[in-house]
Amino acid sequence: MRRPMNFNAGPATLPLPALERARDELLDFAGSGMSVMEHSHRGKEYEAVHDEALGLLRTLLGVPAEHEIMFLQGGASMQFALVPMSFLPPGGSADYVVTGAWSAKAHAEALLWANVAHAKIRVAASTKEDGDGYRRVARVDEAKLDAGAAYVHWASNETIHGLQYLEVPRFGDAPQVCDMSSDFLWRKIDVAPFSMIYGGAQKNIGPSGVTVVIGRKDFVERGRKDLPSILQYRAHAEARSLLNTPPTFGIYLVRNVLDWIRGLGGLEAIEQRNRAKAGALYAALDEHAGFYRCPVEKQSRSVMNVVFRLPGEELEKRFVDEARKAGMVGLKGHRSVGGIRVSLYNAVELSWVEELGRFLKDFAKKNG
Amino acid sequence: MRRPMNFNAGPATLPLPALERARDELLDFAGSGMSVMEHSHRGKEYEAVHDEALGLLRTLLGVPAEHEIMFLQGGASMQFALVPMSFLPPGGSADYVVTGAWSAKAHAEALLWANVAHAKIRVAASTKEDGDGYRRVARVDEAKLDAGAAYVHWASNETIHGLQYLEVPRFGDAPQVCDMSSDFLWRKIDVAPFSMIYGGAQKNIGPSGVTVVIGRKDFVERGRKDLPSILQYRAHAEARSLLNTPPTFGIYLVRNVLDWIRGLGGLEAIEQRNRAKAGALYAALDEHAGFYRCPVEKQSRSVMNVVFRLPGEELEKRFVDEARKAGMVGLKGHRSVGGIRVSLYNAVELSWVEELGRFLKDFAKKNG
Repeated sequence: MRRPMNFNAGPATLPLPALERARDELLDFAGSGMSVMEHSHRGKEYEAVHDEALGLLRTLLGVPAEHEIMFLQGGASMQFALVPMSFLPPGGSADYVVTGAWSAKAHAEALLWANVAHAKIRVAASTKEDGDGYRRVARVDEAKLDAGAAYVHWASNETIHGLQYLEVPRFGDAPQVCDMSSDFLWRKIDVAPFSMIYGGAQKNIGPSGVTVVIGRKDFVERGRKDLPSILQYRAHAEARSLLNTPPTFGIYLVRNVLDWIRGLGGLEAIEQRNRAKAGALYAALDEHAGFYRCPVEKQSRSVMNVVFRLPGEELEKRFVDEARKAGMVGLKGHRSVGGIRVSLYNAVELSWVEELGRFLKDFAKKNG
Repeated sequence: MRRPMNFNAGPATLPLPALERARDELLDFAGSGMSVMEHSHRGKEYEAVHDEALGLLRTLLGVPAEHEIMFLQGGASMQFALVPMSFLPPGGSADYVVTGAWSAKAHAEALLWANVAHAKIRVAASTKEDGDGYRRVARVDEAKLDAGAAYVHWASNETIHGLQYLEVPRFGDAPQVCDMSSDFLWRKIDVAPFSMIYGGAQKNIGPSGVTVVIGRKDFVERGRKDLPSILQYRAHAEARSLLNTPPTFGIYLVRNVLDWIRGLGGLEAIEQRNRAKAGALYAALDEHAGFYRCPVEKQSRSVMNVVFRLPGEELEKRFVDEARKAGMVGLKGHRSVGGIRVSLYNAVELSWVEELGRFLKDFAKKNG
């Protein structure tokens, strides 16, 4: 079957060359006659891939020498638990900025741990509105920050609500910990100000089952040391993400994706592509603003996840069905909010977005 | 290159048909024109694979209706932490049976958590010997069990030390929790007496990055409820292992492997094959007992991981090198114990073991 135009929110479409490479060497990796997933994670063949993936990520994103890069498991959801477990000292407090479903979930999980550890979690800012949910990111000047916070946690992009910090903020002087799952690696950012960044791979980096964590060495080192070692970032960093058997095939695919980004010209080239896609899509929506309604305030509109509503759920259903017939999949909004969501991750082609733009216009004309 | 005879301890060799299937549909899964790893984990295409994998495992292993099957992340090492976190109540106690490196690691991780949770971990039995490490499993009658233990934890096979419970024991009346990583699915066992069984997939079940957990529903339900939800087995079971994005491609490969086992005739057929392989290998070693020395007591010899020594490390190195030239890989013992290790997981062919047997004889003759 013809490859669909896949706008899934994650697991998302992957670059075709990265997949073709995986297919071509699935039974014979590096001339070994074996699949990469049949190699020992302590063998030189796999270790070369592991190190190449770490190195590519460091180079592409310009990760400073003061920061460790880790490949872990469990998704961003696991980090929602591990971050407070490591960095919230008993009796201490951490600040959370809540701007959508994912930062709210991170806050809820941290709160559970805080109760166990006799510590405190504060909401420094929330943009939740009655009825309409989240429509914008939080401004730094509205956050009520605690100068003694162990860290400030926020999410740079909200996949479900379609909002994003386009200017990278800094919430006070406490260590900044950021969930960048759906925001990773679509552009270059300055990693230096962050104490920790994390994200599931299944948006811009690779398949599900791999989680990327970047942590400042001195921050990671400060983590609680009396927990089981598998729960400590410190132990993973020391073991170069080989503390226990890593998801080798997933990391291999991450390597393939990173190498594809490198080949395209790195993050500067990818960012141009991504801004062109989002620009084209929002322009098409705004042109038919009477029919398509973007609930997100303009300055918070995500370049990665574009959400909008049609006049009525019946029309939304028809939109998804007809788009599918036209070869476009993954457009249904998250079940918790409904509507339409278009995810524009790195591997989404500009030509797909242009075709979606034409479809949007036709659909509005026919049904408006 | 010709496919090597791969005796890796895990990640291990996988059945060729399961890999070929993955290769053939890597870019076009279920006629969708997309890779399975590009599908949403909430879409019907992936969910069919997820449910098929769960169903195949239930049928092959005869998992009773009272038990939940979960696909998690983090490996057995993550369960070393999550088991006490869920099932060791504050102020309570749990028993550990220590028979090798992995059950010792499980014990060490549990001890760390017990200190945090003001609970207690006891060693009910240990077979560690001065100097020589572990040479046998522990008998039930030598275990000093605590009648009030929240659970008893043991490992049914020790991958590094090459010993295994061939008769499935029961350590007292407390809930039995068993690390079966390198013991899963090579034969049928009665799951009913276990409160929990877990294991990393990367031996007999699939690639690394997927962890199988089977828990009795009433036991899982009893788990601590005030922890972050991602750390609770209960939450994963309720969500049918879709609490957060699962490692979809890994679970897809698990499905392929399980389907291969089904096609071979199920676990009864696989067990025959595995017993034949281990029988042939131990016979070859015993025939040259003056040259090859198995440190494990006969009644504890593992059917999955056969470990032995040669007269001197120089000879062991030559053995590994010459075997590699003859197309046999993965024979080096774990770095913590040295020597030779032959892992005989499900996908290892009997013909490979026969060839290894001939190699063993020749090598002993030349160097003995």
